[in-house]
Amino acid sequence: MKSRSLLLLLLLVTARLAAGPNAIVIQTDFGTKDGAVAAMKGIAFGVSPGLPIFDLSQDNTPYNIWEAAYRLKQTATFWPAGTVFVSVVDPGVGTERSSIVLQTKSGHFFVGPDNGTWTLVAEELGVAAVRRIDETTNRRAGSEKSYTFHGRDIYAFVGARLAAGLIPYEQVGPLLEAKVVSLPYQKATREGAALLGTIPMIDFHYGNVWTNIPDTLFEALTPAPQFGETFTVTIFHDGKEVWRGPMPYARTFGEVPEGSPLLYLNSLLNVAFALNMGSFSETHGLSSGGAWTVRVERAK
Amino acid sequence: MKSRSLLLLLLLVTARLAAGPNAIVIQTDFGTKDGAVAAMKGIAFGVSPGLPIFDLSQDNTPYNIWEAAYRLKQTATFWPAGTVFVSVVDPGVGTERSSIVLQTKSGHFFVGPDNGTWTLVAEELGVAAVRRIDETTNRRAGSEKSYTFHGRDIYAFVGARLAAGLIPYEQVGPLLEAKVVSLPYQKATREGAALLGTIPMIDFHYGNVWTNIPDTLFEALTPAPQFGETFTVTIFHDGKEVWRGPMPYARTFGEVPEGSPLLYLNSLLNVAFALNMGSFSETHGLSSGGAWTVRVERAK
Amino acid sequence: MKSRSLLLLLLLVTARLAAGPNAIVIQTDFGTKDGAVAAMKGIAFGVSPGLPIFDLSQDNTPYNIWEAAYRLKQTATFWPAGTVFVSVVDPGVGTERSSIVLQTKSGHFFVGPDNGTWTLVAEELGVAAVRRIDETTNRRAGSEKSYTFHGRDIYAFVGARLAAGLIPYEQVGPLLEAKVVSLPYQKATREGAALLGTIPMIDFHYGNVWTNIPDTLFEALTPAPQFGETFTVTIFHDGKEVWRGPMPYARTFGEVPEGSPLLYLNSLLNVAFALNMGSFSETHGLSSGGAWTVRVERAK
Repeated sequence: MKSRSLLLLLLLVTARLAAGPNAIVIQTDFGTKDGAVAAMKGIAFGVSPGLPIFDLSQDNTPYNIWEAAYRLKQTATFWPAGTVFVSVVDPGVGTERSSIVLQTKSGHFFVGPDNGTWTLVAEELGVAAVRRIDETTNRRAGSEKSYTFHGRDIYAFVGARLAAGLIPYEQVGPLLEAKVVSLPYQKATREGAALLGTIPMIDFHYGNVWTNIPDTLFEALTPAPQFGETFTVTIFHDGKEVWRGPMPYARTFGEVPEGSPLLYLNSLLNVAFALNMGSFSETHGLSSGGAWTVRVERAK
Repeated sequence: MKSRSLLLLLLLVTARLAAGPNAIVIQTDFGTKDGAVAAMKGIAFGVSPGLPIFDLSQDNTPYNIWEAAYRLKQTATFWPAGTVFVSVVDPGVGTERSSIVLQTKSGHFFVGPDNGTWTLVAEELGVAAVRRIDETTNRRAGSEKSYTFHGRDIYAFVGARLAAGLIPYEQVGPLLEAKVVSLPYQKATREGAALLGTIPMIDFHYGNVWTNIPDTLFEALTPAPQFGETFTVTIFHDGKEVWRGPMPYARTFGEVPEGSPLLYLNSLLNVAFALNMGSFSETHGLSSGGAWTVRVERAK
Repeated sequence: MKSRSLLLLLLLVTARLAAGPNAIVIQTDFGTKDGAVAAMKGIAFGVSPGLPIFDLSQDNTPYNIWEAAYRLKQTATFWPAGTVFVSVVDPGVGTERSSIVLQTKSGHFFVGPDNGTWTLVAEELGVAAVRRIDETTNRRAGSEKSYTFHGRDIYAFVGARLAAGLIPYEQVGPLLEAKVVSLPYQKATREGAALLGTIPMIDFHYGNVWTNIPDTLFEALTPAPQFGETFTVTIFHDGKEVWRGPMPYARTFGEVPEGSPLLYLNSLLNVAFALNMGSFSETHGLSSGGAWTVRVERAK
């Protein structure tokens, strides 16, 4: 009898171990030359030693909330539901912006300041609920005097407890209105036979230029675009033309000569521009953000 | 009966799995562009596949022992007791400095060369014991001919065995005198109404200037400092004044205008100086190390 | 009886948990500023939450296949048999190069494009088998429309399934001929009393110059080299002499004065050249690759 009960207990513990906890995925603009990220991981590890802890990126441009928002959009859906993202790009740390945990309809959790960081994941994954972090119950013991490192003292701590299943989402804090602070930006649209959009991000490692125009909008052009067909691309900064030229719609970079431009669908299935084996953005001085817009239309 | 014994065995294994091993946290000046850190992690993983392996930072300034010492101080206390830190910033690799494992009174372990790296954690956490690594029993099999990569062949190997509980601390090697090699630096002190200290580190990502003056010394000024009150800060290099000016004591960066200086308590609860949304160190050419000292006093 | 069966099941699950899965070790030229590596890790984690996931390096020089090949050689043997390496330095992504999984005689697995990346591990560890990845069964669900991110959609997915034991090697895809695409380079040889070789890599963090001349070839000189003995080293670029000078054969850097050159056996037990506390490659403008060759002989 006692043996039977022990067995059931063992079964439960084993099942829990086999299932494993959810992951916590951390993004900051702290860099990795510093000990700050390691301190955050130490807190998360201390909450639950079995917790899988990953980096999204610690090398975000300091204070660039838009970039942080885009990195989350680029990454979140490739992680299973239940994954907890902690994002600390927080120029307003210590001021009155809220600290929240966003639950999306996809079942992911997002922990950090409500300063625009959640703009794109809220849009794409849908807001299921937003809770304000109750800092009186959900902060690292002994951290009351430190005002400037919420990433370590609050976000990593709460995120780890949530990921490890030590608190349910409900115990994060009080429910807020189901919306987050959103950064303004130009949505992708169709205007006659042309597609308009913005440049949310440079794939800076290779210098490819990404747009927010999705494959669905691109492929809804009539007739449907074919690989090898040429498009005219215009890129504007503050409304002023910076670059204009033809680009073949290519399936892969190797289909055009080295140094030639091409239009392709990037790994997020958005329209993007590149030079094969070159840097389109560096060659032509292009960058990203709300001031950069694009126009794509069939070559005449 | 047999079933009962099996059950007990299972219980032990499950309990061990549920408790989890301690973490090993690695710091080097090798960079991450290289395969060296991955080789160290491979050795640690091979010792115990379940071992949680983390980076402190691999991007320390090459040969800068002081920086390594400070990163450990900045990070160690945020990890649970039992955590094993391996630090390899080792300009003297292969010369006669000792290879040791320091156990601090806080229950943390520190593995690496006794070359000054442990100066600050020894001071802050207290030296419980120091053991010389017995390299005849504690080195990776087959590594006898390699003299230049102790990080991989000895430190990662010993650190992993210790973290995984495969050897007790006593088996690291013979006990030495309970002290470590210490780097000289100016301690924080009070001189009349002024506080004196050094600049141990630039928070280089944002350019904030950190001092070694703790909150306790700062708050012991009479009367106690109030948020919003102005202090006069002077910064010296080799005893010569480099910068002098007033700074409000702020709780958060957002309390002063963009570009303005402020005095705050950093995430280690030490006095620090910053420009809101700017780089104080770059703007004024400030750096860190023993030659940089500071003076903080109430503005008259 | 039922209890007995449960016990056996538990025993199996516990044993599997205790043994732990193999590790997956990832190398790319994506950098860590981007979300791409985190997306790959998300896929791998989703395949098996308990999977140990490590970075080799994400900071490889873009498009530099030789460097990727060398990093694998530098690292692989320090990981246990069964470890799965995923390497994505892939200028030809989307073109007709094969996607393969190489099994070496050492029991390691290598997942990625067959574009030369496997040159050195195939040579050093021996080719046991090569299988083409069957992309109809072995790719992330929903990834059919994305042609440009094989690292995430195919390699991380297949690599994780293989490491976690969810598919045996045989289910990767059809067996190919047991060889890989190899990059040409000059092998280390002896010519009379001189050793000839190439510079496969700069240990760029410190600026040390590595050769592909192994300790066995070096020590087979007659008489056998002794520590302290002086050698004449000549370095050529495209066959033209760039540097020539004497170097003592040193056991450790500290044996020569700061700034002086030395010849040593590096952590891979190959002949290498360095300046103690300086950068030999930067000081003399040396680099790596097939065009750089070296000659080592006893000083007369």
